[in-house]
Amino acid sequence: MTNSEIKHISSLKYKKARLEAGEFTVESEKLVAEAIASGFEVKLVCYTPGDVDSRIVSHPAAVAVDEKTMSRISQLSSPSPALAVLAMPESVAEEEVAGLAADPGALCLALDGVRDPGNLGTIIRIADWFGIDAVLASPDTVELYNPKTIQSTMGSIFRKKVIYCDLVDAARQFSAAGAAVYGTFLDGDSIYSGKLDRHALVIMGSESFGIRDYLSASVTKKLFIPPYPAGGSGCESLNVSAATAIVCSEFRRIY
Amino acid sequence: MTNSEIKHISSLKYKKARLEAGEFTVESEKLVAEAIASGFEVKLVCYTPGDVDSRIVSHPAAVAVDEKTMSRISQLSSPSPALAVLAMPESVAEEEVAGLAADPGALCLALDGVRDPGNLGTIIRIADWFGIDAVLASPDTVELYNPKTIQSTMGSIFRKKVIYCDLVDAARQFSAAGAAVYGTFLDGDSIYSGKLDRHALVIMGSESFGIRDYLSASVTKKLFIPPYPAGGSGCESLNVSAATAIVCSEFRRIY
Repeated sequence: MTNSEIKHISSLKYKKARLEAGEFTVESEKLVAEAIASGFEVKLVCYTPGDVDSRIVSHPAAVAVDEKTMSRISQLSSPSPALAVLAMPESVAEEEVAGLAADPGALCLALDGVRDPGNLGTIIRIADWFGIDAVLASPDTVELYNPKTIQSTMGSIFRKKVIYCDLVDAARQFSAAGAAVYGTFLDGDSIYSGKLDRHALVIMGSESFGIRDYLSASVTKKLFIPPYPAGGSGCESLNVSAATAIVCSEFRRIY
Repeated sequence: MTNSEIKHISSLKYKKARLEAGEFTVESEKLVAEAIASGFEVKLVCYTPGDVDSRIVSHPAAVAVDEKTMSRISQLSSPSPALAVLAMPESVAEEEVAGLAADPGALCLALDGVRDPGNLGTIIRIADWFGIDAVLASPDTVELYNPKTIQSTMGSIFRKKVIYCDLVDAARQFSAAGAAVYGTFLDGDSIYSGKLDRHALVIMGSESFGIRDYLSASVTKKLFIPPYPAGGSGCESLNVSAATAIVCSEFRRIY
């Protein structure tokens, strides 16, 4: 590998470089093997020779590198034996949102300005576990291709569609198609009472601001996860990924 | 503040120094105000003059510092206007565990080797929200006073008891008192079916290893959070804090 190739891969730790190149990296044998098996375009696979998964070594774009090179291109403090450079898939957000809104079997999440990459990744993993059809995200939600987001999806990034789009417009389309638009609020109805519509958009607010004013009017059914005992202990809220886990579990619960 | 005081506070970013001093720091106006209102012993409060909460400024151990000093003692990349040095409360783990096991109203979590400080902090916040009586933790669970753990509890560290102890012994005590010992396993029964005992210890496994062999024999009822649709998508598991959120919600659910 040339010095300029090494520099290019290394630069992908920065958002600006990722967006300019339309490329991002994934690391660890597990994630690289899942990337190869996914529909994502794999531009380059680097591995350090040793006991590495045969799907990685035999990939047409695979290159063996020494450990020194791996530590230069890796973003991990302890580099793993494998790293892949992937192309960001092209987004056709408008068509995709319209298709989901019109599908009576579609249950989607919408994230309003989630800022923490670990939370975004964990939410994508939750959505994958519970068969949520897609995760919509406001344009100011943290970047999907942030390395911390990707690592915390644990591979779910390759299976779950994440669409950055205008959430007011998305909520309007779901409503127009007869779907419910849920959101969690401190003055909502208990999520444990009443039947939840399965054709729905479920909005989750950000860590600091919850569901912001510009979007709250789009919510048709306010939900609340009750603390125990009623009235609570002084704890003001749940982390957004913890709340999302509970909400998704309730929607997929077998009664 | 003297230079040696500044160095001492700054050293508390390291686990070794924290354990030697029996002290730890919390930062942000919210957390410092909650620390003052809690039962924790507050050894020192530092604040940068300005529009700071009066409970902080009026504390007997409060000292005004300039921003340069605050940035030296702070562990945050953007220091907040307040920092407190607190004494680690003394632990009487054995008595506390015995008391909880014997209490027919006690529902406790047990964490088997959770490694990520953000996960531990998020789980303490979940336990606070759902009125879980205490969080037990195996001795190799990440340190409670790690700054990342503390920040991610969002103040729940001041309300929720966390007890590091031998989990096999704790499980034995809960069983002997007639409580259930639950754990989540891939071959467990759906958490949605059947009634959950409220006098119970609920064991959650670590990020990498789940519930380890040494402890799994202590589980009397295996639980499982089913993916949707049945069979799943290829997603192998949920993050431990997401799973804990769902489990706690189920135990506190009103049927």
